[in-house]
Amino acid sequence: MTKLRIALAQMNPTVGDFPENVKKIISYIKKADALKADIIAFPELAITGYPPEDLLLKPQFIKDNIDALEKVRTASKSIIAIIGFVDKKNSSEHEIYNATAVISNCKLIDVYHKKYLPNYGVFDEYRYFQRGTRYPIYNIGGVNIGVNICEDIWHEGGPVKVQSTFGANVIINVNASPYHVGKAFLREDMVSKRAVDNKVVIAYVNMVGGQDELVFDGGSFAVNRSGEIIIRARQFKEELMFFDIDIEDLKSAHKFSAKKVLEKYGEAVEEIKIDFLIRGNKPEIKVQRFVKPSAMEEIYNALVLGTKDYIKKNGFKGVIIGLSGGIDSSLVATIAVDAIGKENVQGLFMPSLYTSKESYEDTYRLAKNLGIKVTNIPISDIFKMYLKTLARDFKGTETDVTEENIQARIRGNILMAFSNKFGWLVLTTGNKSELSVGYATLYGDMAGGFAVIKDVPKTIVYELCNWRNKKEGRDVVPERVLWKEPTAELKPDQRDTDTLPPYPVLDSILKAYVEEDKGFDEIKRMECEVECIQKVVRMVDHSEYKRRQAPPGIKITPRAFGKDRRFPITNRYKSY
Amino acid sequence: MTKLRIALAQMNPTVGDFPENVKKIISYIKKADALKADIIAFPELAITGYPPEDLLLKPQFIKDNIDALEKVRTASKSIIAIIGFVDKKNSSEHEIYNATAVISNCKLIDVYHKKYLPNYGVFDEYRYFQRGTRYPIYNIGGVNIGVNICEDIWHEGGPVKVQSTFGANVIINVNASPYHVGKAFLREDMVSKRAVDNKVVIAYVNMVGGQDELVFDGGSFAVNRSGEIIIRARQFKEELMFFDIDIEDLKSAHKFSAKKVLEKYGEAVEEIKIDFLIRGNKPEIKVQRFVKPSAMEEIYNALVLGTKDYIKKNGFKGVIIGLSGGIDSSLVATIAVDAIGKENVQGLFMPSLYTSKESYEDTYRLAKNLGIKVTNIPISDIFKMYLKTLARDFKGTETDVTEENIQARIRGNILMAFSNKFGWLVLTTGNKSELSVGYATLYGDMAGGFAVIKDVPKTIVYELCNWRNKKEGRDVVPERVLWKEPTAELKPDQRDTDTLPPYPVLDSILKAYVEEDKGFDEIKRMECEVECIQKVVRMVDHSEYKRRQAPPGIKITPRAFGKDRRFPITNRYKSY
Repeated sequence: MTKLRIALAQMNPTVGDFPENVKKIISYIKKADALKADIIAFPELAITGYPPEDLLLKPQFIKDNIDALEKVRTASKSIIAIIGFVDKKNSSEHEIYNATAVISNCKLIDVYHKKYLPNYGVFDEYRYFQRGTRYPIYNIGGVNIGVNICEDIWHEGGPVKVQSTFGANVIINVNASPYHVGKAFLREDMVSKRAVDNKVVIAYVNMVGGQDELVFDGGSFAVNRSGEIIIRARQFKEELMFFDIDIEDLKSAHKFSAKKVLEKYGEAVEEIKIDFLIRGNKPEIKVQRFVKPSAMEEIYNALVLGTKDYIKKNGFKGVIIGLSGGIDSSLVATIAVDAIGKENVQGLFMPSLYTSKESYEDTYRLAKNLGIKVTNIPISDIFKMYLKTLARDFKGTETDVTEENIQARIRGNILMAFSNKFGWLVLTTGNKSELSVGYATLYGDMAGGFAVIKDVPKTIVYELCNWRNKKEGRDVVPERVLWKEPTAELKPDQRDTDTLPPYPVLDSILKAYVEEDKGFDEIKRMECEVECIQKVVRMVDHSEYKRRQAPPGIKITPRAFGKDRRFPITNRYKSY
Repeated sequence: MTKLRIALAQMNPTVGDFPENVKKIISYIKKADALKADIIAFPELAITGYPPEDLLLKPQFIKDNIDALEKVRTASKSIIAIIGFVDKKNSSEHEIYNATAVISNCKLIDVYHKKYLPNYGVFDEYRYFQRGTRYPIYNIGGVNIGVNICEDIWHEGGPVKVQSTFGANVIINVNASPYHVGKAFLREDMVSKRAVDNKVVIAYVNMVGGQDELVFDGGSFAVNRSGEIIIRARQFKEELMFFDIDIEDLKSAHKFSAKKVLEKYGEAVEEIKIDFLIRGNKPEIKVQRFVKPSAMEEIYNALVLGTKDYIKKNGFKGVIIGLSGGIDSSLVATIAVDAIGKENVQGLFMPSLYTSKESYEDTYRLAKNLGIKVTNIPISDIFKMYLKTLARDFKGTETDVTEENIQARIRGNILMAFSNKFGWLVLTTGNKSELSVGYATLYGDMAGGFAVIKDVPKTIVYELCNWRNKKEGRDVVPERVLWKEPTAELKPDQRDTDTLPPYPVLDSILKAYVEEDKGFDEIKRMECEVECIQKVVRMVDHSEYKRRQAPPGIKITPRAFGKDRRFPITNRYKSY
């Protein structure tokens, strides 16, 4: 019984790092070759990393990417390699394609061009790429295989349908599909449906790793013709995964094959015969099928990987975090320790005149639980000096949010001073609920290089801490932090609820307004007062200017701030 | 001799302000009606303002925009009104179009859908809109008129070609075309060519006004069939402009008219007869044809309008600016005074230990020339308190950029304190050359709401100051500021050239690398040392994280930072 062995390289490339990406690709090819895989598939744009954004507008970048592919080509001997890269038409114009190379025996056999270009959410592919117009089908040792890219498979009548209609029995879909909670389920459901509808085996290989605001979660998998998952990679880790297909079995399902032009759009179906002998005497392999984690575990792992990769890929060794004894900074410190190790995480406790004994205790307890160092830098002397310096000009004015912000910005300045002096990246600690309504100080607690939990609603911040404590079997985040009332401690007896509705209410309004684009009439049907909804909506609309200057952070919801939600600052639209 | 009178309303809408936009549109309709215009044309998306960005994803926003159009419809009686709005298919799906309504006698006669959707530079139209598939031709009192939208006219074989081939003698092209230096020339050249090639009269109406990073410069115009400019509006001002076309003359140029389906793409050409009698007894009008300004005048006016509209449309009354006695802050203060009046501009002089007597003198001289108030807030006491507070932790380290940044951030904090306390918007003063190479302190001199000259290279900063002084016939920017050496004054005897190449060299490298995407080999051919180019390129690549957190500012070059240049922060690409 001859088997076709397919390897899926769930790889973590770095945007623009051609030498390292090529090295990684070649090392995976060697490993797959050693296990006598016939085919190895890499993620979308594995050569360049994803998304390269406006690097794609540089002709030199495109040329360097093609040179990088050349290096991979000459290293691919006894295995067919399917590799994502940027293809270019041989013309003077800058006409480029999101493409996959099909390499066999050190020869570039064919190049597939992505047909469906996503241009919504975080995606801008129409900004860069032309659409493909060909549906190649590769005949590899008698098996007809269709290759397509990411978004292509989400379209019911798209390449999978055409390629399978014209004879493909196996589809390899290569991806750089960014994470949000629950996305892995959506992908598997959809791919499973495509497999059943088109009677094909589908291999789905995804990228893994963090890139600025995005985390690619991996979770590559394959489904059989009945739509059952036959193999599934871990999320958030690099993996080289194998599965075998019985060729006789495929032949029994063999459909007609044809070379035909689909005239409607001038698009072409082509059968391309690849001179390749399926390899015999394959060593045994263990088929992986990881169980999918819970939502909290998934989100937590996404945050750890996104943080780790931002730090490492940007060349930082350590981070510094302003610790307040509150739940947000506790979570961020915990994530940082899980990402890069306790020895590389430095805490900074910066008490104000209004900081409580509890905050002090909880900060040091957290630090002890995590095994990280904390430096204590009181800000009250500096604050008093600001007040003195400003006294003449502020004479006769009431104390207001100004004085709160001065303190937050002193902390920002001190954190940045440590960053400048010792080269540590500052992680900010604001959550999505705060950022949505602008309950944060620009250049104050918003100051830093990476905003780990900026897309995590406050209610989920609690759940994540609970999950993390439970996983550890002991308190990592001190127990009191989980139940004491949230406060910014920037004036006497301050509570978040002085300004905001309780977080469960706030988060449900924010989900409806920010993530689901619901109109005011729809949100009004929710169980909270109209005035409260109006206030929240107004706060969201009026704090766009702050979000524009916020550091990047990891997308974990279906709609994050940043590239995912592009709002005008100058905006007089009133939806309430 | 019957004349068709066309009015072009070069209007300044505000994004999302439906009530005010409608009021403005109706008031222009009344004015044009009084002068017996037959047709009035408004800019692209005049109802919503441009670009509405992700407001377009909100179904409620689309509905409110259609309700706003309804109000305009019922107010358009004896004139044909052509009005940009967002059209929606009557279906459950969110399928929308960048559209123009054609209204006659209070009836909505037709809706044209934009065919060519720009998705490059600052544009994201594929993110929101579907493409149109119809080419309507309106027969108005015997004259065949084609309407199309902005990008449509840039395509040689596009709507102008089709509409004129099928009988249109007049084309009305409605725009929201953002400014960059020299763009007005490009537009007129291109439109003039279209007119000659297709033997049509073309009216080009543009939006005017500032919207976050963009300024729409207006400069609406019309060309005759020989491609000559027959009318031209001022740039950077609202205008209602008229011109007449001799109908007999058009009839002599009458081409065939036909109703036909272009089968290739399932697109349709339609002739739509509008029941409308061209109005007689028209009062005389004076035809405007403004002379185009010099490049410096144009840029300066763009900066003034962009600043004014950001301030006004966001509801600020005044601004505060950190004045250093240098050329950047001098220019920004001058622009601010020209934008909103000297009584609304407040200067803040914040000397450090390293601030020179010259800086003090030049600041107060500038303030005197402009007639603005300056407050003097020395930062050295606060700075010393920071050093004292950090002494223990910084013990044994060398003085470096950290101490410079602390001072810049103290200034940022003080500026923001004034902003918080008195409600003034902080204008930042950094230029494009600095921002390109990251020669600026995040949360320090980069702190503020609007970055007036962030897209102005330092060499142009000098030219603008010279132009402004010459225009005034006296020094506004003090003469010494124009020739003394630039310095940040954050350490003893500091000069910009300690860190950067001379600005003329720097700006020429930046233009090649940032604006023109030239490869390293191409830039190397320029007249400067390879090491110098490498250094500059490296600095540009490594400061993306700073630019990501910069406030918005006005685009004046073909490629600005911000939405116009989307770069990854995590980026290991080395082009040198």
